Amino acid sequence: MQAWEWRGEVLRLLDQRRLPHEQVWLECRDTAGVAEAIEMMAVRGAPLIGVAAAFGAVFATREAMATADPDQGLRSGLSLLRAARPTAVNLMHAVDGMAQHLQSRAPSAWPAAALEWAQGLAAREQANNTVMAEYGAALVSGEAVRVLTHCNTGSLATPGVGTALGVVRAVHAEGRLAQVYADETRPWLQGARLTAFELQQDGLPVTLICEGMVASLMAAGRVDWVIVGADRITARGDVANKIGTLMLAVLARHYGVRFMVVAPTSTFDLALEQGREIPIEERDPDELRRLQGVAVAPADVPAWNPAFDVTPAELIDCIITERGVVAPVCAAAVRSVVGSG
Amino acid sequence: MQAWEWRGEVLRLLDQRRLPHEQVWLECRDTAGVAEAIEMMAVRGAPLIGVAAAFGAVFATREAMATADPDQGLRSGLSLLRAARPTAVNLMHAVDGMAQHLQSRAPSAWPAAALEWAQGLAAREQANNTVMAEYGAALVSGEAVRVLTHCNTGSLATPGVGTALGVVRAVHAEGRLAQVYADETRPWLQGARLTAFELQQDGLPVTLICEGMVASLMAAGRVDWVIVGADRITARGDVANKIGTLMLAVLARHYGVRFMVVAPTSTFDLALEQGREIPIEERDPDELRRLQGVAVAPADVPAWNPAFDVTPAELIDCIITERGVVAPVCAAAVRSVVGSG
Repeated sequence: MQAWEWRGEVLRLLDQRRLPHEQVWLECRDTAGVAEAIEMMAVRGAPLIGVAAAFGAVFATREAMATADPDQGLRSGLSLLRAARPTAVNLMHAVDGMAQHLQSRAPSAWPAAALEWAQGLAAREQANNTVMAEYGAALVSGEAVRVLTHCNTGSLATPGVGTALGVVRAVHAEGRLAQVYADETRPWLQGARLTAFELQQDGLPVTLICEGMVASLMAAGRVDWVIVGADRITARGDVANKIGTLMLAVLARHYGVRFMVVAPTSTFDLALEQGREIPIEERDPDELRRLQGVAVAPADVPAWNPAFDVTPAELIDCIITERGVVAPVCAAAVRSVVGSG
Repeated sequence: MQAWEWRGEVLRLLDQRRLPHEQVWLECRDTAGVAEAIEMMAVRGAPLIGVAAAFGAVFATREAMATADPDQGLRSGLSLLRAARPTAVNLMHAVDGMAQHLQSRAPSAWPAAALEWAQGLAAREQANNTVMAEYGAALVSGEAVRVLTHCNTGSLATPGVGTALGVVRAVHAEGRLAQVYADETRPWLQGARLTAFELQQDGLPVTLICEGMVASLMAAGRVDWVIVGADRITARGDVANKIGTLMLAVLARHYGVRFMVVAPTSTFDLALEQGREIPIEERDPDELRRLQGVAVAPADVPAWNPAFDVTPAELIDCIITERGVVAPVCAAAVRSVVGSG
């Protein structure tokens, strides 16, 4: 399964808001279309957002070429992309990397150079997924491993086999996966709609639960590892990820369950030291009050809807990157594996 | 707001599956109708289930009178009620109390005696709510209290002001409630559909969140007390309550938030010592896969759906009963407050 496709004039994105009921492909033909797909979460998952933004920047170079002031045109196109989601740092890295790649080139060379860079990014992320899956699986010992995962970090969230789900797939490929629990991941239900769908399609033994059931599952000794992705990681190893991750980390510590984060080095933001410096996107309260068009709460009740939380380094056993494993999770280990950026 | 009404020939129950969108009253006219309303969760909340079952037993006495073997008829009617939900002990207590009350009486006297007993139970539960609200509010210090509650424990779950929500209401009546957070309580969304609705109707400052947001809320120092109800409590103070409660207790302990359980002594099952002895009802996986008729996951993905979890006494700061406060929570304190049953 792949959730994106580049066709030269159009970036096709599998609309993840309609899964698992309908497989509808959005066709983005300009910068604004890509930015909107990111903002509205038609495309999601930090690595895939980065790749989508890079192809969005290809459109931005073409649009800039058609304006009187290409430099200004490119800047405003890239700004539009950068603003689409504030927490995922891959988006920022993709847009900044693209800007740097184009900087020394003449506007007439931008579209080809941008396309080359975007395709290179997608290829690198795919290769990273594969390497991380190997590193992660090697750390997960045992012949009948029970994993709990959160949100969706597979082929719908990345250009490759996935980050956390890449590790789960590798354990499964070795014949050692007894069970993977997907929590539903309210309010967007990425776990129920996407992870359960993707793992079932691929024949992995998946069971759906609610977040509120995780403590019971751990208390019963039915989980060996929590394995999740990340949207941004600081220099000391604090991890911003989908809301609900912090709860899993606290419960894992309480019940002696190990906790693994799988994220390419592009997820690190070494300019930030502490997790509290990470901007946390707060989304529309209606995402709690309505569910696929159905009201599930009073229409005007106040609701708090942060899209991410921050898990402190102290609660994380290891972070798997394509350059190696950060463990124990601390500033020195991040420096040694990820380098200076 | 009251969610039940006895009219002599009919027990009217506000159908809680349809709230907050529609206020539909179910009319139960026989034992089977009451048992079905309990099983299908049209009526819910441990204390209110007990009261509904007691009125269901009134029907059972009338039906038994019309059979050749009234003793056998009554037994089978009461069994039907007892089997409707396995975890809430109030149901068992109500049915057993009723059976004992009728035991020494002639079948011809049953209907009147049963009605008197059912009405007495409802009146006692109402009075208990009021007393517990006072005891609980007295323990909650401060002038701007922030409470987090789970599931629904108010006028829709009890015949009175509520258990946990009774305490919240009392703090509010004293002008000391800054905020009450209602988590949505998946999979049935009692928090979103019922608690948010009930508190908003009554003018309390309520904010809706998802379970996955609780850790962030606590990490930000925005909760002083978690206050919840209970479905069954053992002799050592282990508490079975709506799934998700255990997660709140572990998080509360991690973040130094206090944890209060509010439950009448009818919720105690002193025949059980350890929480693991409590039978935990597992419900239809479709409760996770579908939401008010809308599919939110692949139709055939396996799902685990325990309706309750057990919070060990060690994670609970106090249990408020109508006979006094159990604190610290241990077998000796339970014995001294609740007695031998």
